[in-house]
Amino acid sequence: MLVDLFKSLFLILALAPCLYRTLVLGSVPEINGSLTYLWPLPSEFTFGNDTLSVDPSLSLTFGGKGGSSGILSAAFDRYRAIVFKHSDVFSIFSRFRGRRSVYDISELNVIVHSDSEELQLGVDESYSLFIAKNDGQSIIGGATIEANTVYGALRGLETFSQLCAFDYGTKSVQVYKAPWYILDKPRFPYRGLLLDTSRHFLPVDVIKQIIESMSYTKLNVLHWHIIDEQSFPLEVPTYPNLWQGSYTKWERYTVEDAYEIVNFAKIRGINVMAEVDIPGHAESWGAGYPDLWPSPSCREPLDVTKNFSFDVISGILTDMRKIFPFELFHLGGDEVNTDCWSSTPHVKQWLQDRNMTTKDAYQYFVLKAQEIAISKSWTPVNWEETFNTFAANLNPQTVVHNWLGPGVCPKAVAKGFRCIFSNQGVWYLDHLDVTWDRVYTAEPLEGINDVHKQELVLGGEVCMWGETADTSVVQQTIWPRAAAAAERLWSRREAISTGNINSTALPRLQYFRCLLNRRGVQAAPITNKYARTPPIGPGSCYDQ
Amino acid sequence: MLVDLFKSLFLILALAPCLYRTLVLGSVPEINGSLTYLWPLPSEFTFGNDTLSVDPSLSLTFGGKGGSSGILSAAFDRYRAIVFKHSDVFSIFSRFRGRRSVYDISELNVIVHSDSEELQLGVDESYSLFIAKNDGQSIIGGATIEANTVYGALRGLETFSQLCAFDYGTKSVQVYKAPWYILDKPRFPYRGLLLDTSRHFLPVDVIKQIIESMSYTKLNVLHWHIIDEQSFPLEVPTYPNLWQGSYTKWERYTVEDAYEIVNFAKIRGINVMAEVDIPGHAESWGAGYPDLWPSPSCREPLDVTKNFSFDVISGILTDMRKIFPFELFHLGGDEVNTDCWSSTPHVKQWLQDRNMTTKDAYQYFVLKAQEIAISKSWTPVNWEETFNTFAANLNPQTVVHNWLGPGVCPKAVAKGFRCIFSNQGVWYLDHLDVTWDRVYTAEPLEGINDVHKQELVLGGEVCMWGETADTSVVQQTIWPRAAAAAERLWSRREAISTGNINSTALPRLQYFRCLLNRRGVQAAPITNKYARTPPIGPGSCYDQ
Repeated sequence: MLVDLFKSLFLILALAPCLYRTLVLGSVPEINGSLTYLWPLPSEFTFGNDTLSVDPSLSLTFGGKGGSSGILSAAFDRYRAIVFKHSDVFSIFSRFRGRRSVYDISELNVIVHSDSEELQLGVDESYSLFIAKNDGQSIIGGATIEANTVYGALRGLETFSQLCAFDYGTKSVQVYKAPWYILDKPRFPYRGLLLDTSRHFLPVDVIKQIIESMSYTKLNVLHWHIIDEQSFPLEVPTYPNLWQGSYTKWERYTVEDAYEIVNFAKIRGINVMAEVDIPGHAESWGAGYPDLWPSPSCREPLDVTKNFSFDVISGILTDMRKIFPFELFHLGGDEVNTDCWSSTPHVKQWLQDRNMTTKDAYQYFVLKAQEIAISKSWTPVNWEETFNTFAANLNPQTVVHNWLGPGVCPKAVAKGFRCIFSNQGVWYLDHLDVTWDRVYTAEPLEGINDVHKQELVLGGEVCMWGETADTSVVQQTIWPRAAAAAERLWSRREAISTGNINSTALPRLQYFRCLLNRRGVQAAPITNKYARTPPIGPGSCYDQ
Repeated sequence: MLVDLFKSLFLILALAPCLYRTLVLGSVPEINGSLTYLWPLPSEFTFGNDTLSVDPSLSLTFGGKGGSSGILSAAFDRYRAIVFKHSDVFSIFSRFRGRRSVYDISELNVIVHSDSEELQLGVDESYSLFIAKNDGQSIIGGATIEANTVYGALRGLETFSQLCAFDYGTKSVQVYKAPWYILDKPRFPYRGLLLDTSRHFLPVDVIKQIIESMSYTKLNVLHWHIIDEQSFPLEVPTYPNLWQGSYTKWERYTVEDAYEIVNFAKIRGINVMAEVDIPGHAESWGAGYPDLWPSPSCREPLDVTKNFSFDVISGILTDMRKIFPFELFHLGGDEVNTDCWSSTPHVKQWLQDRNMTTKDAYQYFVLKAQEIAISKSWTPVNWEETFNTFAANLNPQTVVHNWLGPGVCPKAVAKGFRCIFSNQGVWYLDHLDVTWDRVYTAEPLEGINDVHKQELVLGGEVCMWGETADTSVVQQTIWPRAAAAAERLWSRREAISTGNINSTALPRLQYFRCLLNRRGVQAAPITNKYARTPPIGPGSCYDQ
């Protein structure tokens, strides 16, 4: 294979943070234009000193069983639009006529070995990318991405697009520091972002914008916290009154909307993990079916005594199963205040009849919901309270979703559970006082030394809770901090955990933030004390 | 003509604000889903009580000399994507199969009388829009837009799109309150938004996003304040060192970028008025040509003594003339602090030799620049200081651009000048403490009673100065307040100046803000005390 050939030709350098320390200059006007800043950092890469020009008519050639994938050609079109943003064809000034017609790279060759387009947890996202000058005589040269799956090829396309820089002097797209040889793969299979569409409804177009921007950082799971106590925006055909719990008639998702979001994400290599948070955080369900409340005056958690509660959950999950193919499904389970159970007469009686405490009832509810999810071939994910409260009885397939604080994943994996890291002190994006460096240095494997136990940490997720983030501010609350977590989750731990991050990571993140801006994403200044604070005065994007 | 026929059939009601008082309910869940909220309010309209369904395969038929315009068909594609955002074709749930195949409106007929696509100040933007049930027997019915120019048709398409609402019950697009008969035209020919790309560079994609959102409010001039003292991002082929004044190599606009922005705006019926602010606000010019500074230590205003200063201005304007076809060109002229002229020896000497004061030199500079602009068939626009300082000597073609305070346009039109209203106390969007209602009630014709003098007021412009607005926050600083000004500039004064705007305008603006959100625009909550403040808690878009 072409790429294998070069494995022996090129020395694969482990990333030395000192590389960036020596290359990256501090002050903005001195940023070296011939440098290439990649985010997140690839697993292994080498580069040289050539500057190559890229043909604005870059064509795609493909090979391998998966080379003819529609996902691939659509992605190529997207990335071509990104790379060749600056029109090169038309010029109204004569001095730009007669542009050279020979380019170093006029073809991108993409080889995808598998024709499976199944996108599940652990899908192979590895790729190799090789860019070198083609002297016209050798078969070696040009730009080649090789991957086992189309999703690996997508990651390679993103990296390729970041290596392509528009040069304002020659008015052409250039790849600096070629030849590039990159072997890349993610550290964790689960790299998530939570979106909360209950506290504020986010229109489909906005969710798509966010998914698109996720793909730039190689995040791969959208955790869609669709419903909460404030509103129930999703259509559930089996229980059509549920979306009477939406804020208004216009703040709703049809099943078609949801399906479109899942598909939009899939062709960008992003899974959508839906959440139905039960038994707490569910007051909005009762707008359409008041029987789900313990009583009209005491509305949460869902009524544990009624079969109807579980019928509705089963109905929701049956309908959702048609929309969400991802094997993980989030059942919530957090912050369950059981006061309504102990204070509502018929619930209190039901508990007494069964000699159950409210804690027992909480466990009963969660486990019953897990059974429903498992019966639909879903792997249940629960917020950590279920693990904290009754780990011994939890289904062993359960994925424990940490949020309350540090040290939970070590405990969970010690008991054999898989875990997702979202420690609120560092990875809750609605905590505006968490600066980029605290996000960046948070380590999902902290406190877990056994390699086999480490493998039980699926990854992590930054959470964009929606209480104070609506359409007007959601993107700049997410970015750039979510990108800091994305590198933590993608890149090799050794490569990003040593050295002074103010020189190894910050300049690249500043560059990446401006790249997001150039792509139309409202990423906020990085070094602000509080996230999403506007700039305090004029200045360059690269300096704010 | 079809539409003329109906002029006699339908009573044209002037908008009675009481209409909204009676129809609009205060609390969110009670917003009447069968209402249609239009922004800005059309000049004249009537409606009925029918609900019509719109075919998701809506086709465009066209007539008139301008019916085959590419601008029109591109706009139809854009609006079809907006109107039919919710996928109607695919359904994974059987209960949605067998959707009805007969719709009330399956065709949009657009008649454009002129085949001229010239977009200049005062271009005819009027249109009529008629939507009625077609009973299949009569030729009357369906949806028809009639306009003299393609730009009028664009305005009609926007209105049509706002009348089309997705109904979550039937999962189809509906037009409520049909038949609709709308005769519409703008009150002012100039309805602008200023963007400042010097204090913060705004990427081309971001400018395009803003232009697109402007078209939703029928604003029609992007005043592009490209250059200022902080940075010079634009390429000027004749003086190629000028963009050495850009913040970084990547914060630049090529001439092709500029041309693309102009064309992107044009096909949305939006002119781009470029500004070269002289002789103040020009320090960045000297990064490439230090001779333009009075001295290296005293850098503004441009050196009035040198022919080179005017050569460069002439070169810039020559290059820009190829890019910006709009007849108005902004020459700035504001906030000229002449201390550097009186303190720099060679300039001081030059003034003494000519027996000129610094004020004389300011006038000399401005008038000389005006001559250059006029020689290139441009109509000069100046910030009001030039009028305030030497009105008698100002070229009578000059358009006076108010900003400092109220009362300027009355003075300017009294002297026969044309005027643009941008009173900073109400229409500077960077003034975050100006609430929507103050923006809305600002009246460009305030203090001008003579109808002929009123005609000299071209319109107004909201100004988005960029000191604290970069890509991350520019959209929510602009919207929704710019929309308040847009209605002031488009709709009939009587229709929007009486009654309690909290019932006549606010509910419509809240609806429109959520419409912007649905279209992916980051419009901020309306009733916040300071603009662009995030919501303080969960809630419906329509209530924040």
